[in-house]
Amino acid sequence: MAEDTLASLRSLMASHSPPLHALLVPSEDYHQSEYVSARDKRRAFVSGFTGSAGLALITTDEARLWTDGRYFLQASQELSNQWRLMRMGEDPPVDIWMADNLPEGASIGVDPWCVSVDTAQKWERAFSKKQQKLIQTSHNLVDEVWNSRPPPELNPVSVHPLEFSGRSVADKLKDLREKLVQEKARGILITTLDEVAWLYNIRGTDVSYCPVVHAFAVVTLNSAFFYVDRRKLSSEVNIHMKENGIELRDYGAVTADVTLLASDQLTPSSSADVAKADTPKSKTNNNDNSCEVGANNNDFIWVDSGTCCFALYSKLNGDKVLLQQSPLALAKALKNPVEMDGLKKAHIRDGAAIVQYLVWLDRQMHELYGASGYFLEAENVKKKESKTTRLTEVSASDKLEQFRASKEHFRGLSFPTISSAGSNAAIIHYSPDAKNCADLDPNSIYLFDSGAQYLDGTTDITRTVHFGKPTKHEKACYTAVLKGHIALGNARFPSGTYGNTLDILARIPLWKDGLDYRHGTGHGIGSYLNVHEGPHQISFRPSARNVPLQVSMTVTDEPGYYEDGNFGIRLENVLIIKEADTKFNFGDKGYLTFEHITWAPYQTKLIDLSLLVPEEIEWLNNYHSKCSEILAPYLDESELAWLKKATEPVCV
Amino acid sequence: MAEDTLASLRSLMASHSPPLHALLVPSEDYHQSEYVSARDKRRAFVSGFTGSAGLALITTDEARLWTDGRYFLQASQELSNQWRLMRMGEDPPVDIWMADNLPEGASIGVDPWCVSVDTAQKWERAFSKKQQKLIQTSHNLVDEVWNSRPPPELNPVSVHPLEFSGRSVADKLKDLREKLVQEKARGILITTLDEVAWLYNIRGTDVSYCPVVHAFAVVTLNSAFFYVDRRKLSSEVNIHMKENGIELRDYGAVTADVTLLASDQLTPSSSADVAKADTPKSKTNNNDNSCEVGANNNDFIWVDSGTCCFALYSKLNGDKVLLQQSPLALAKALKNPVEMDGLKKAHIRDGAAIVQYLVWLDRQMHELYGASGYFLEAENVKKKESKTTRLTEVSASDKLEQFRASKEHFRGLSFPTISSAGSNAAIIHYSPDAKNCADLDPNSIYLFDSGAQYLDGTTDITRTVHFGKPTKHEKACYTAVLKGHIALGNARFPSGTYGNTLDILARIPLWKDGLDYRHGTGHGIGSYLNVHEGPHQISFRPSARNVPLQVSMTVTDEPGYYEDGNFGIRLENVLIIKEADTKFNFGDKGYLTFEHITWAPYQTKLIDLSLLVPEEIEWLNNYHSKCSEILAPYLDESELAWLKKATEPVCV
Repeated sequence: MAEDTLASLRSLMASHSPPLHALLVPSEDYHQSEYVSARDKRRAFVSGFTGSAGLALITTDEARLWTDGRYFLQASQELSNQWRLMRMGEDPPVDIWMADNLPEGASIGVDPWCVSVDTAQKWERAFSKKQQKLIQTSHNLVDEVWNSRPPPELNPVSVHPLEFSGRSVADKLKDLREKLVQEKARGILITTLDEVAWLYNIRGTDVSYCPVVHAFAVVTLNSAFFYVDRRKLSSEVNIHMKENGIELRDYGAVTADVTLLASDQLTPSSSADVAKADTPKSKTNNNDNSCEVGANNNDFIWVDSGTCCFALYSKLNGDKVLLQQSPLALAKALKNPVEMDGLKKAHIRDGAAIVQYLVWLDRQMHELYGASGYFLEAENVKKKESKTTRLTEVSASDKLEQFRASKEHFRGLSFPTISSAGSNAAIIHYSPDAKNCADLDPNSIYLFDSGAQYLDGTTDITRTVHFGKPTKHEKACYTAVLKGHIALGNARFPSGTYGNTLDILARIPLWKDGLDYRHGTGHGIGSYLNVHEGPHQISFRPSARNVPLQVSMTVTDEPGYYEDGNFGIRLENVLIIKEADTKFNFGDKGYLTFEHITWAPYQTKLIDLSLLVPEEIEWLNNYHSKCSEILAPYLDESELAWLKKATEPVCV
Repeated sequence: MAEDTLASLRSLMASHSPPLHALLVPSEDYHQSEYVSARDKRRAFVSGFTGSAGLALITTDEARLWTDGRYFLQASQELSNQWRLMRMGEDPPVDIWMADNLPEGASIGVDPWCVSVDTAQKWERAFSKKQQKLIQTSHNLVDEVWNSRPPPELNPVSVHPLEFSGRSVADKLKDLREKLVQEKARGILITTLDEVAWLYNIRGTDVSYCPVVHAFAVVTLNSAFFYVDRRKLSSEVNIHMKENGIELRDYGAVTADVTLLASDQLTPSSSADVAKADTPKSKTNNNDNSCEVGANNNDFIWVDSGTCCFALYSKLNGDKVLLQQSPLALAKALKNPVEMDGLKKAHIRDGAAIVQYLVWLDRQMHELYGASGYFLEAENVKKKESKTTRLTEVSASDKLEQFRASKEHFRGLSFPTISSAGSNAAIIHYSPDAKNCADLDPNSIYLFDSGAQYLDGTTDITRTVHFGKPTKHEKACYTAVLKGHIALGNARFPSGTYGNTLDILARIPLWKDGLDYRHGTGHGIGSYLNVHEGPHQISFRPSARNVPLQVSMTVTDEPGYYEDGNFGIRLENVLIIKEADTKFNFGDKGYLTFEHITWAPYQTKLIDLSLLVPEEIEWLNNYHSKCSEILAPYLDESELAWLKKATEPVCV
């Protein structure tokens, strides 16, 4: 199929006006989403590579795919021999490669809906050296050759109630409009799905794992618009929108409306015009959240160039565009007290599911394979041949999902569970396939990275375990990863510090032995929203979206180590940033630290205790003691007994 | 005087064409030097602030001085009440402040010889918001009002021989021309004093502490020019230049020559034209280091926008300028084997001088004040009144200079010795004044940061000591600084890592208690050149001059902690970057680490050993043991006995 696809695409490229020397196929949808719906998986369709991040380039005689270190192994397995894998950080970046290898004056096509302003402009700069041109295709060429492309989703949208969202749409609109006035903007175009969902306190199921709705929003100083397929809206949502003065428009109307916005001619129909709204209800509810300002002061349209697609940006007047990170990115990242409380509760229920899963796994490994299990290290475990009952990566992760699904407020998984045995654990974002996944093996490491969506919060946790006898090398690596995980999670740092600065803390114990991992160390996590959330992060790459770590942000702490063909290790907790209780406060900066909100044991059997310093031992014992205390109410007697054993204090 | 100066300057500003609303007076000379000669200390002359870094702004009714955290205390003491101190990192940066506070359309003057291209362009961008203009003054207004300005220096230039420089001018020119060809440049303008000295293997004494010569250089693919006051050149230097095909020109001729260079009309006089040079000597010596290339390929003139003055840049044709870090910055930073060997030897002799100084200080403190001394902690030391013999910050540092001056290859100090007792130690770049400096005090911490110029290398070391009974708080702070110093010096990191990434390692132990320091953690150091050398650094500020740490670079490791009005602590060693002998080599990156080349004891009395982990204790004992072994040949019996006691192993 892939061969036909490339041939068909090349024929479309040749007949395009102008003819295209190359076609770029990004992973992203019209909203620059990380996870996209089935019908938006164009890059996976053309290349066969199913990872979440990557960029395909098809030239007249070649096909190359760029992806990052998390996916090197997976991409090399999934790509056919028509494709060449380009390793980000090792091979030349795509823009440099194109400028160097495509002919002078080449026309390089891309669907402008699937690429951000920043990326398109970066490519254009690189192309200018050889008079190459970025061509915005008038339609998506991949869609044209994709006969089996799934139809548009028609999933219902729901209101996310105040008991979970913690802040009303009226208040969020008021905050947003204050920021517009501060920045002399008269309106903002919001294209990111989780920002639209967060601002309007709605949730959906258009995209697997992310409770978002395919929609755009435009907010001006006295109006607000919601661009969505209206068939998805229940009467509850219609009322919610009306009450908040948000006007509904068709999803496709956004293009024409952005053109009107550019010339200041976008006006709400009278019924939804909140500036004119004068019903007693809106007055008593203090719902008039429009801003009164002099018209001349606010000329700009705010667009987030990192997330807005090039297509919509092109409709605006370049001079009057404020290209700046959306104020909603930070507002969403700073969890309010209700969201924080919900996140903590969701993580406790989630931790209980993890412990139940570990107890179940331990029993299965005993029963099916006669493994020494979670606590003991057997010299020689014989793998029992069991044809009737197999324990596979997929059957195991299904069981884990069951435990989670039994918990209050469960709404689904927050990403495809990474359930990986032995050498599969070295594939950083491994996603087992039910048809040909591996069996769990008592002689190998088992890594599971998983999370769920609960109405009160999103979770993400990774643990690495061994049910037989780990090697000395595996223990040394596990211990180095754990030391990094503790060093980062225990850090205290002055206000104003960026995640990029802290990243090294998780790597230093690995670097000591010449080890490392090819992924970032932490990402924000949503409140019943995306599992990966910005604008902050903890990474060795300095972020273009430069926001220091701040009180009430969430962030994961997930160092790892991966040995291709052998094993993988990762440990991940979710942390919340809080004020640190330091003895001094030099420079009156205010010092910050982290609070772990994930609760599940680390397997002490995998720790080489001789490599830990007293402070690390103390932290581990303290965490384990809290873990057992906090999860106790959610476990039955035998589960709790198991947990108490798993969290017994260790000493050097 | 200062009042008259400001009034005179304002009168010149008013009569300037166009009239100036403000005048910027930078610290730098025509070469953007950190340390400048007496006649170039214009900013100190107008403001009274004598620190090495700062920027003065004089408006019609105000005078403000921006400086960084090292100098907040000193500047606040030195500035008169006509001046207002602006704290970098706390107050608005100068360009933002000017744009916000000076009137729309204001004319802001600066001498374009004293400001870099980058800085001038940054200011211009900030000014454009309010149609303000950066005016290049045709002459320096400060010079006009500075009646007592010292005359030009006439210091002799010497050849830096191959036994210390390790690489011939011919080889350096060959390397440089290869880089020009790589970057499609036909010439380079070199304005940085240490780059000129390094490239041409010469040294001078025009600037205190820096063995450089006021000079410019221009190198094309087949010619090389040296712009200098020829009266400074001995016949040895004249021969050296001629042998290397370098043509001498007057210092002031650089302006006209850069204009010629822009139009490709700069040609050497026939005798110095190395492309035409055809003497047997140059052939047998393989001295023809010119490059044969097609004329059309090499159009650009290479200029380092971070260091080249705006005045010379303005003579070039903007389209054909390659604005990029000078290739000499990195070439100079990567020490060759001869330079490395020299640096190590210089640091051993320097360490011996430090130990001799500590022995002498210890004896003085006993004799003059009856102090318990370096090793013991006395409960109550009574400060003896000694009117005849005082031990002051200056008399002490003079003695230290004597010890250094007795060592082979000594050529002077590498910066003004920071000899600071008690609360003066909190002034990060304190420079004691003989007339009113403090006495050393057995009840207070004494910090000394000093270095020397030796023919075979430049040194820089800081130690902090106490000859009485330090407080528990002082010990805790000293220990936190030491822990950071060890953590950084012991780090292993993959090739490609930037100093900015490592900076946090030195701060984490301080941050734990809410402490910090307002300066970077490390800088490169020259080989009988500037004590502060780029392009790399270890700092919390990401460097615009972005170069990863590389094998054979030097870098200091100098965290500190300063409590205004009380005490200051800093520990500093010079390190050389080398390959690390790691067990693994993940990603085939190659892992790097540091080698300490500074040898002097840490005062174990000031360490709270209970705060150290076993790895730190081991490092300390190992360093101390090597210190005693390496310095032994340079010490007499009693000095060695003292050192053996000072370096006795400690245990928890």
